[in-house]
Amino acid sequence: MSKLTDVPKRILIGRALRSDRLGETLLPKRIALPVFASDPLSSVAYAPGEVLLVLSVAGVSAYHYSLWITLAIVALMVTVVASYRQTVHAYPNGGGAYEVATVNLGRRAGLSVASALLVDYVLTVAVSVASGVENLGSAMPWAVQHKVLVALVIIALLMLMNLRGVKESGTLFAIPTYAFVGGVLLMVAWGGVRGLVLGHTMRAPTADYKITAEHAGLAGLALVFLLLRAFSSGCAALTGVEAISNGVPAFRKPKSKNAAATLSLMGVLAVAMFVGIMILAMTTKVKMAENPATDLLINGKPAGADYNQDPVIAQVADAVFGHGSFLFVFLAAATALVLFLAANTAYNGFPVLGSILAQDRFLPRQLHTRGDRLAFSNGIVLLALLAGALVYAFGADSTKLIQLYIVGVFVSFTFSQGGMVKHWNRHLATETDKTARRKMHRARFINAFGMVFSILVLIIVLLTKFTHGAWLAVLGMVGWYTVMTFIRRHYDRVSEEIAAEEGEADEAVRPSRVHNLVLVSKVHKPTLRALSYAKLMRSSGPVEALSVNVDPVETKALQQEWERHGIDVPLKVLDSPYREITRPIIDYVRSLRKESPRDAVSVYIPEYVVGHWYEHLLHNQSALRLKGRLLFTPGVMVTSVPWQLDSSEVARRRARKRAEWNAPGSVRRGPVAQPKKEKAGGRK
Amino acid sequence: MSKLTDVPKRILIGRALRSDRLGETLLPKRIALPVFASDPLSSVAYAPGEVLLVLSVAGVSAYHYSLWITLAIVALMVTVVASYRQTVHAYPNGGGAYEVATVNLGRRAGLSVASALLVDYVLTVAVSVASGVENLGSAMPWAVQHKVLVALVIIALLMLMNLRGVKESGTLFAIPTYAFVGGVLLMVAWGGVRGLVLGHTMRAPTADYKITAEHAGLAGLALVFLLLRAFSSGCAALTGVEAISNGVPAFRKPKSKNAAATLSLMGVLAVAMFVGIMILAMTTKVKMAENPATDLLINGKPAGADYNQDPVIAQVADAVFGHGSFLFVFLAAATALVLFLAANTAYNGFPVLGSILAQDRFLPRQLHTRGDRLAFSNGIVLLALLAGALVYAFGADSTKLIQLYIVGVFVSFTFSQGGMVKHWNRHLATETDKTARRKMHRARFINAFGMVFSILVLIIVLLTKFTHGAWLAVLGMVGWYTVMTFIRRHYDRVSEEIAAEEGEADEAVRPSRVHNLVLVSKVHKPTLRALSYAKLMRSSGPVEALSVNVDPVETKALQQEWERHGIDVPLKVLDSPYREITRPIIDYVRSLRKESPRDAVSVYIPEYVVGHWYEHLLHNQSALRLKGRLLFTPGVMVTSVPWQLDSSEVARRRARKRAEWNAPGSVRRGPVAQPKKEKAGGRK
Repeated sequence: MSKLTDVPKRILIGRALRSDRLGETLLPKRIALPVFASDPLSSVAYAPGEVLLVLSVAGVSAYHYSLWITLAIVALMVTVVASYRQTVHAYPNGGGAYEVATVNLGRRAGLSVASALLVDYVLTVAVSVASGVENLGSAMPWAVQHKVLVALVIIALLMLMNLRGVKESGTLFAIPTYAFVGGVLLMVAWGGVRGLVLGHTMRAPTADYKITAEHAGLAGLALVFLLLRAFSSGCAALTGVEAISNGVPAFRKPKSKNAAATLSLMGVLAVAMFVGIMILAMTTKVKMAENPATDLLINGKPAGADYNQDPVIAQVADAVFGHGSFLFVFLAAATALVLFLAANTAYNGFPVLGSILAQDRFLPRQLHTRGDRLAFSNGIVLLALLAGALVYAFGADSTKLIQLYIVGVFVSFTFSQGGMVKHWNRHLATETDKTARRKMHRARFINAFGMVFSILVLIIVLLTKFTHGAWLAVLGMVGWYTVMTFIRRHYDRVSEEIAAEEGEADEAVRPSRVHNLVLVSKVHKPTLRALSYAKLMRSSGPVEALSVNVDPVETKALQQEWERHGIDVPLKVLDSPYREITRPIIDYVRSLRKESPRDAVSVYIPEYVVGHWYEHLLHNQSALRLKGRLLFTPGVMVTSVPWQLDSSEVARRRARKRAEWNAPGSVRRGPVAQPKKEKAGGRK
Repeated sequence: MSKLTDVPKRILIGRALRSDRLGETLLPKRIALPVFASDPLSSVAYAPGEVLLVLSVAGVSAYHYSLWITLAIVALMVTVVASYRQTVHAYPNGGGAYEVATVNLGRRAGLSVASALLVDYVLTVAVSVASGVENLGSAMPWAVQHKVLVALVIIALLMLMNLRGVKESGTLFAIPTYAFVGGVLLMVAWGGVRGLVLGHTMRAPTADYKITAEHAGLAGLALVFLLLRAFSSGCAALTGVEAISNGVPAFRKPKSKNAAATLSLMGVLAVAMFVGIMILAMTTKVKMAENPATDLLINGKPAGADYNQDPVIAQVADAVFGHGSFLFVFLAAATALVLFLAANTAYNGFPVLGSILAQDRFLPRQLHTRGDRLAFSNGIVLLALLAGALVYAFGADSTKLIQLYIVGVFVSFTFSQGGMVKHWNRHLATETDKTARRKMHRARFINAFGMVFSILVLIIVLLTKFTHGAWLAVLGMVGWYTVMTFIRRHYDRVSEEIAAEEGEADEAVRPSRVHNLVLVSKVHKPTLRALSYAKLMRSSGPVEALSVNVDPVETKALQQEWERHGIDVPLKVLDSPYREITRPIIDYVRSLRKESPRDAVSVYIPEYVVGHWYEHLLHNQSALRLKGRLLFTPGVMVTSVPWQLDSSEVARRRARKRAEWNAPGSVRRGPVAQPKKEKAGGRK
């Protein structure tokens, strides 16, 4: 109770900063990088394999195209990073793709982006966890042998962690991310030294295997199509790039500049890792087949259904560091960890986006309250269920899941860059300063280029992957879009219905007095409290106690008690030949309203406050049902007068604990706008 | 709305009698018999078979004991009927076993009886439906081939019928019951004529089959045990006999006399049918084996797993009327129908008993309201689920289910008769009139005899059937007993906690004034209504509007609107750096209470009334959560000021329809005590 002493102060200046609330401290670049970039950086763990896998359809000879595809992906990465650098400067308050699209291209574009993002969060969890398990499996085979189970367990663990409210710290992100980046770069460097300086011949475990081409000697349009498919698979490396642009407010000042620098650093690291892994994969002759069971030949025989294809990054590490060496195991662990971390980012991105959408009334309004445990919980559980279902349906196979993944990413890229082009157009229309105009022109060019590139990739992805699974992602987006449109329409209709007319300060018919009714079943403390409260309202109109005669004996006893306690409120007993409670009361209230239509009726219901869920089954049920019916009766208000049972202490403590819960991901969102002094509206 | 004109009248004299409410008309004997006796009469459809089945363990030669067993069962039936005739006279208001046991033997005895009855209702459904399907199958083989499925479908249909609220009429019961009784008596009579007068040799379809005795040549104690087991199986014929004693108030005057007469008639009919079927079964050489697949030999070979053993009643009908003849099919249909009707009686007995137990606070109080749809619905669904689970677990095999059945019946018989003995002892202690004393002595003797007989049977049933399944029934009873004890203890503790002290007419600290807070988010009609209601309370204390600043832009807009509408209530804005709604309000309320501890705080929350369940997800959630937290704060009352959205009209109509719903089984319960004139307690 001593904490209550500072209540007035807290109301005036807002809750004191608590040191364990990391969300309120701003992030330096070295922490911001791992916090925001675990998702895009981790995707180099699966993207290279996807490229090789698709190319293998045309046989190993097609592998030499992989360098061209790598170049195309690097070009795309550079373009996207450059585009988002413009966004970061233009929207220093955090320009998520949804906001940029809505502001510049209108509500439908924004909603399309939002639908794409919601689907993508689910896929981030599914793909990252599946890939993490596969990487784990390269060092610990049992993990891949029970792939689906392990993946589901990890999804469930992430869910529970987030439901409990993890206190995220920068360190939590920094250690695995830097371990992963360092490990990969060391591998690339040491591989280069061994190959070029020491002249070692490094061979991946699959170097000696052969691949039977499903379509050997592919040429012409068919080959182009295959290359495009390989390219779009490789684009998985770009997922999550936009995270930094959402997180600008969390950076130290100068925010935009620091965010842009971090974005560039992320781009450089991602490109270096991706290119390095691809070159090493070529050098060590990694073989990846789309259907290893039949198409991969070990000593001339198909590998069979039991064969487990290790990820490219693991095979390269095997070749460079040696199988089972410390660095090999270390890198496998770091890779798995950074992938699970990437999955974890979705667990807070999903509810945060939900909160923004709720603010714009596309989702239920109660999701709006930021940091509210219940709003978060629903989102977290929903995300885990959807991701779990996908993982189960696709056997935790990252290759299959990636087919669904990239559509959403490029839908949001396209709309976001398109929105930026509009943004610059609008600013160019008013800007007169020459230097500023030149900068804007340059920025517009970059964003336009990014938009065109994204559209192109989106078309390629849709063409090459629609039948492979992308249709499901498209269906998911259409689903979200429809539901959100429906919800918005509902809120709009209600808002129109309840709009106050101009100058209307009161309802047309303002009640002249209030008929106060206190529901009574026995004379006990809760009833007495309700009576004493109601009596305070006596000046507003008559006060009357109301009881329903369900059992004549009990009613008689009630009347005697009433007399004995000398209660100065008249007791009215309603008869109920069918032992109903609700109907006689509703009928009585209606009759009061009929007698004097200008009166309002106020019904006081003593309510028990309990501590355990099962106690709810034992109390208040009739009261709740009655209340539900009374609310349909016009001109009635219903007052609950609580009586805290001893057992409610349990629940109060629980509620207090819940209120102190930390929303996950607060690190990444940065602090909210500064608390302001409270204001009081003028009295007129 | 025209119906509202008679509201004052309806409040004065109670709702007008409606002709479709059959529950309000009293039953003549010819209707009361089928209404109350479908359960006991229908049990002759399965009881005879159970006797033969058990005897077959010792080989067909043991069949000749069946006549002795029949005699024992008849003696028991006569005793039980005679005993219940005493109850009917002593408790003209309907002396259920629960009431008799509670009043005379105390709470624990009553609770034991109640537990037994709750278990028995479930078994009535399971056994009757299973047996009904078997009888149906004698005419329509496909019904037995998909026994479990058909039984589950019928349980589900009965559930849906009862959930919808069937308007039961006497005719509904009369036609199948009289068809069944008439059919069986006709069969017995025609069988007698054919055998004795015309000298025909009638042979059951199984007459030529042989039975391999599992224990041939059983003698001594083992034989006695087997005979006792056969006897206790045959006691299934007694289930449901007590129904009439519960239903005395539904009889025409003189109630007790008519009820007793009906009880006797029921006894005579049941005995006649049971004895007739047993004799015909012997004459037509029906063979029943406990394990027909292995022990029944057709032409010297075991019948095999596919063999379906028809009920005795069907085999006898086959022999007497001829297979596939009209009367054979008619009797099979009538038997199945009356069995389903018997199952249906449990669907209303279960919730009615629940309501009585709720009145005595052994079950959640809200079940008390009689005829309340929700209370009934829960009971109906629970019963269907439990019975369905049993039917599924036991493969809809009536023989296996009967093993569980009879325990509960005899627990309630024993306690009920024991209670009656106490009842007479008590009356004898004060009664001085000689004739009356003689009558009481006679009645006490009958009840004492019934009690001893019941105890004996109960012991036999427990001994012979415990391992065959009766343990599950016992477990069920213990479960109910424990839960009900727990609930009662909880209510008692709460009732002690909230008891008003002698002479206490008010709380020790009576609030001196009320701080009225209206929660506001926007200026719209619901808010304005809440404000205008709160302003009526102005005399009780200050009125203040309260808003939480979650979004500075929205808050600014609210303040401007406030000014523009010229609202004469001060608007206080609470800051919320974490975008929470609940916490700032709770803190503010606490600070008010701290400043002036003698004030109460009244919080007005505008609430939306909606029509569809999904709209609940879109509205009021924050308000509900806030309310939940506020109720834990002492000295606070929470007022919902409803705003009916247009869509709420749907829900209102639905609610009105629900209110006019008829509780199933109202026929059987008869009308409640006469409606009384309403009373108003004196003002002091």
